[in-house]
Amino acid sequence: MTHKVLIDCDPGVDDALALMLAHGSPELNVLAVTTCGGNQTLEKVTRNALSLADELGKDWIPVAAGAQRPLVREPLTAGHVHGDTGLGLVELPDPQHALDERHAVEVIAQTVLTHAPGEVTIIATGPLTNLALAIRQYPEIVERVHEVVLMGGGVTTGNLTPVAEFNIAVDPEAARAVFTAGWPVTMVGLDTTHQALATPEVEAQFAALGTRLGQIAVELIRSYREAYKNNQAFANPPCHDPVAVARVIAPELVSVRRAPVDVELRGELTTGQTVVDLRGSAPEDCATAVATGLDHGGFWALVVDAVRNLGAPTPHGKQA
Amino acid sequence: MTHKVLIDCDPGVDDALALMLAHGSPELNVLAVTTCGGNQTLEKVTRNALSLADELGKDWIPVAAGAQRPLVREPLTAGHVHGDTGLGLVELPDPQHALDERHAVEVIAQTVLTHAPGEVTIIATGPLTNLALAIRQYPEIVERVHEVVLMGGGVTTGNLTPVAEFNIAVDPEAARAVFTAGWPVTMVGLDTTHQALATPEVEAQFAALGTRLGQIAVELIRSYREAYKNNQAFANPPCHDPVAVARVIAPELVSVRRAPVDVELRGELTTGQTVVDLRGSAPEDCATAVATGLDHGGFWALVVDAVRNLGAPTPHGKQA
Amino acid sequence: MTHKVLIDCDPGVDDALALMLAHGSPELNVLAVTTCGGNQTLEKVTRNALSLADELGKDWIPVAAGAQRPLVREPLTAGHVHGDTGLGLVELPDPQHALDERHAVEVIAQTVLTHAPGEVTIIATGPLTNLALAIRQYPEIVERVHEVVLMGGGVTTGNLTPVAEFNIAVDPEAARAVFTAGWPVTMVGLDTTHQALATPEVEAQFAALGTRLGQIAVELIRSYREAYKNNQAFANPPCHDPVAVARVIAPELVSVRRAPVDVELRGELTTGQTVVDLRGSAPEDCATAVATGLDHGGFWALVVDAVRNLGAPTPHGKQA
Amino acid sequence: MTHKVLIDCDPGVDDALALMLAHGSPELNVLAVTTCGGNQTLEKVTRNALSLADELGKDWIPVAAGAQRPLVREPLTAGHVHGDTGLGLVELPDPQHALDERHAVEVIAQTVLTHAPGEVTIIATGPLTNLALAIRQYPEIVERVHEVVLMGGGVTTGNLTPVAEFNIAVDPEAARAVFTAGWPVTMVGLDTTHQALATPEVEAQFAALGTRLGQIAVELIRSYREAYKNNQAFANPPCHDPVAVARVIAPELVSVRRAPVDVELRGELTTGQTVVDLRGSAPEDCATAVATGLDHGGFWALVVDAVRNLGAPTPHGKQA
Repeated sequence: MTHKVLIDCDPGVDDALALMLAHGSPELNVLAVTTCGGNQTLEKVTRNALSLADELGKDWIPVAAGAQRPLVREPLTAGHVHGDTGLGLVELPDPQHALDERHAVEVIAQTVLTHAPGEVTIIATGPLTNLALAIRQYPEIVERVHEVVLMGGGVTTGNLTPVAEFNIAVDPEAARAVFTAGWPVTMVGLDTTHQALATPEVEAQFAALGTRLGQIAVELIRSYREAYKNNQAFANPPCHDPVAVARVIAPELVSVRRAPVDVELRGELTTGQTVVDLRGSAPEDCATAVATGLDHGGFWALVVDAVRNLGAPTPHGKQA
Repeated sequence: MTHKVLIDCDPGVDDALALMLAHGSPELNVLAVTTCGGNQTLEKVTRNALSLADELGKDWIPVAAGAQRPLVREPLTAGHVHGDTGLGLVELPDPQHALDERHAVEVIAQTVLTHAPGEVTIIATGPLTNLALAIRQYPEIVERVHEVVLMGGGVTTGNLTPVAEFNIAVDPEAARAVFTAGWPVTMVGLDTTHQALATPEVEAQFAALGTRLGQIAVELIRSYREAYKNNQAFANPPCHDPVAVARVIAPELVSVRRAPVDVELRGELTTGQTVVDLRGSAPEDCATAVATGLDHGGFWALVVDAVRNLGAPTPHGKQA
Repeated sequence: MTHKVLIDCDPGVDDALALMLAHGSPELNVLAVTTCGGNQTLEKVTRNALSLADELGKDWIPVAAGAQRPLVREPLTAGHVHGDTGLGLVELPDPQHALDERHAVEVIAQTVLTHAPGEVTIIATGPLTNLALAIRQYPEIVERVHEVVLMGGGVTTGNLTPVAEFNIAVDPEAARAVFTAGWPVTMVGLDTTHQALATPEVEAQFAALGTRLGQIAVELIRSYREAYKNNQAFANPPCHDPVAVARVIAPELVSVRRAPVDVELRGELTTGQTVVDLRGSAPEDCATAVATGLDHGGFWALVVDAVRNLGAPTPHGKQA
Repeated sequence: MTHKVLIDCDPGVDDALALMLAHGSPELNVLAVTTCGGNQTLEKVTRNALSLADELGKDWIPVAAGAQRPLVREPLTAGHVHGDTGLGLVELPDPQHALDERHAVEVIAQTVLTHAPGEVTIIATGPLTNLALAIRQYPEIVERVHEVVLMGGGVTTGNLTPVAEFNIAVDPEAARAVFTAGWPVTMVGLDTTHQALATPEVEAQFAALGTRLGQIAVELIRSYREAYKNNQAFANPPCHDPVAVARVIAPELVSVRRAPVDVELRGELTTGQTVVDLRGSAPEDCATAVATGLDHGGFWALVVDAVRNLGAPTPHGKQA
């Protein structure tokens, strides 16, 4: 069975790996890619999404730009992690793929509404501004989405602050809207993505592919390795976003637990924290779940396979 | 000179009077009416907006429905003030005017973008959810709008709480987005609208018109009189929303002062308060202003004239 | 009838005027003076309180030092208003009066508990840290105090921020404890004290006394005039603290209205705001009241009389 | 080497076990016991502290009552966990030991100030109101205390809420004052105390002592077992407070890690959460540490030994 997915992202080093995993996996049918300011400005992440569509040979999939900034708060980007372009050391040619003229919110709504109820899964790997705007403007999509699987938050740790993760902290109001909408949401948070470490062995597997995309993966990982060593003292960098994609492709690789999730909006020290209640069993109507563990080997095998599948397309998107 | 205006509202007893004033004033060219859940549910206020278009003989002006609920918080309505239908004691026939198929956010954006820069004034008399969604999705409208004149907030008093006014308190996150967007915003708050009291003399002037619409105005005021006597111990009810419209038609009737305005989002006692800094002169780049006084006689003369101008159209919108 | 009062203060230019008014008024029997860090550091304001006791010839009245810092927040002083010493341009000799060895909290508790129930009025003109500590440690004093009359807060304006006044904003947690303790509290806030303007005519009256203390009053006012011109664009400076004392001596000079008062502790823009509910009648059990107006002439006559009464004591406290 | 300790507590089922451990351990010299409203009202927990002094044969150690309620917030007790008396199923005779006449704040200050700098360790097992009052009134104690070891908070879980522990959540303002005072604070939080499970084997060891106190320990554990089964679905109850005492007696049983700790005061979902920054190494001047693990066997052996040491005193405190 293939899953029809829409990917809302802010590429971003690990978003790029997430897009490789998604586009290279036969289990997924990527219907559209939408972008949101986050790891870098909207302009930059949208440029990256288009260039990646070229590189991955997927230039028939719509790429649409979304929110420049959060619902309420001032914009925040993460150039110190993702570099000035948003893709670390990787330099991609200018995109050939033309931007979809519609706003991301329209693309999200139309994609969901033109497919059968329960047919579309949304994978979100950036701030949740686009999704929040979409459900406020088109609330009827909530009950038609199969599931939202998102990289963000954490149960026991943060990165931007001691307890808040970047994607959620950038737009906590949007995150609350998404978590409490009533649709099924699986949160793939730092507790789990900090296990998705790109070890030298992983890097070697990508290098061994001998393809242009394998080399891009290597460079993305090297960019991240450098950034995480300097910023967060990780010897091997955690590759967050592909874990959310992996959960859709191969749920057995990412264990989850149903639990209520909400987002703190007003704390002095805790704004943007995902507050997960693990004190007892989840209530029957609980629509949220949180990732609790990762099969490290299985996960990376999946990503390497996907990059292998994508082969080495020319820069203009024709399969080599 | 006529002003091209878009009215975003939640009719609502005083919104109905505001629409009468707007539609009956030759100084205004109403381009569109958009609705937002507030005084009553989105469904009810939209029904009222359509029925009022019929009553006022303006069934060629688009009416589009917008947000069902606030950006972040749970919905809140004011049936104890505006009654079960939203129009107090007034019962209007089912609307003939067809709802515009577009979402209010699209209508706002398209209205602004299809007119010249600086041509369109937005008058908002409900929660500011639609405007906030519009500027987040279409940020390019911000610099093309002539001015936003809104009924909401207060400098020294509230009504929903000691310090927060209903329209702002229902969606304070949206209000912050609107106040801080950088476009010119004039806040017509409770300090001023509490001076717009519908005295028995005012009521008598509407009655003396001898028209169906004059009678509707009388009934709207009577509904409000009853509600405000019970809920807030006002002998004569304050008619908030038309004051914002009056400010656009005849600015000399509503004195204003430039001052920074922001909205409290996190207070335990103050959430939804408009925080206005009147301690000194406004900074040069201050784009916000607050109403500070009303010419009571001039204001009501304006509204009575407008209702007179509208004549007594039949229920189906043909001018009598 | 004389009122037995304890004065908790942070002298402070206007505290000095308040102490002059209190000590020079036959209607008041000042039982003790306690100090709290606020306008300047605890060390400086305590030194000022002792030196003023010498100047005013009241060196038999205990002066005890209290809290160095607020209950929860970091200390904040107002040297830009009260100068480096806390008394503006006024330079007083080193104090002869010896500091009471007890902590202010002990002095407050013992003063209240060694007098009859209802006998002691507390006048507070600084942050409320000492009072809050006292009622938490000795809750039995709450029902024995006649009334707390405090300078602080405001109904419609602030000074440290658009909506928060300095004394309350420095220690809002203490202020909440004091306002909600259940004892009678009269808040003399900025709305009223901004009417207590020291005009040139007022200044001339003090000068005309021809006494050392008259001259000190003149210099205090001149210090304040300079500070308020620079900091808040007041032509004539508002002399806050003596208004609270005046309310005890001559209640007819300061009109008040019973109303619920609470203090915002969590606002992003409003922390330290006194939230006063003036929307309707106060509930029957409402123990708080707020000042609403001042008899300017009567007020200053009272202060001038008090300074005249004090005569021109020598620096060491013997009446001239 | 013996440690001179002052125990500030709110007995409380697990406080009772903590007092047994402290009084029965030759490594500790308990200088005083102070009480604070928490698990039950101040009146009840003080009664329990006195009765326990009798039972443990320690009626020469001062017991002083402290704060009835938190610094700022409304009181909150935990009768559903600790029962109506605060000691679960255990019924102790009325106390013979007379309450110290001083307030707990005075006892804390005098105990610290009459011993050499660095000589006194404070163990706190209830809300931190007394300690906060003490350091605000007598800030000079901060640098004279050897260390504060407290049961409270948690790094990754709460109990009163998903993220806040009872002792901290009852008086978060006091907790912030204590954690940020600059003295060494070791937080023994739920992460660790949830490992201090009283298994049936542990219970059997107390029963095997064959003493009155062994039996009381058994009944305390049974009370807790019942409460935790009903309230938090623990098969074996976690005995929190003795872990803090154990950390002082035998630090090797409770591993700790230096890390910054602060307390959230304003969160909508997170108020009372201890926010611990474990993202990197602690800064050099970090005075706080958090418990990270427990030697379960060693811990319970310590407690059983202490209860054995205490023997079976008569109800009136004479050693049997």
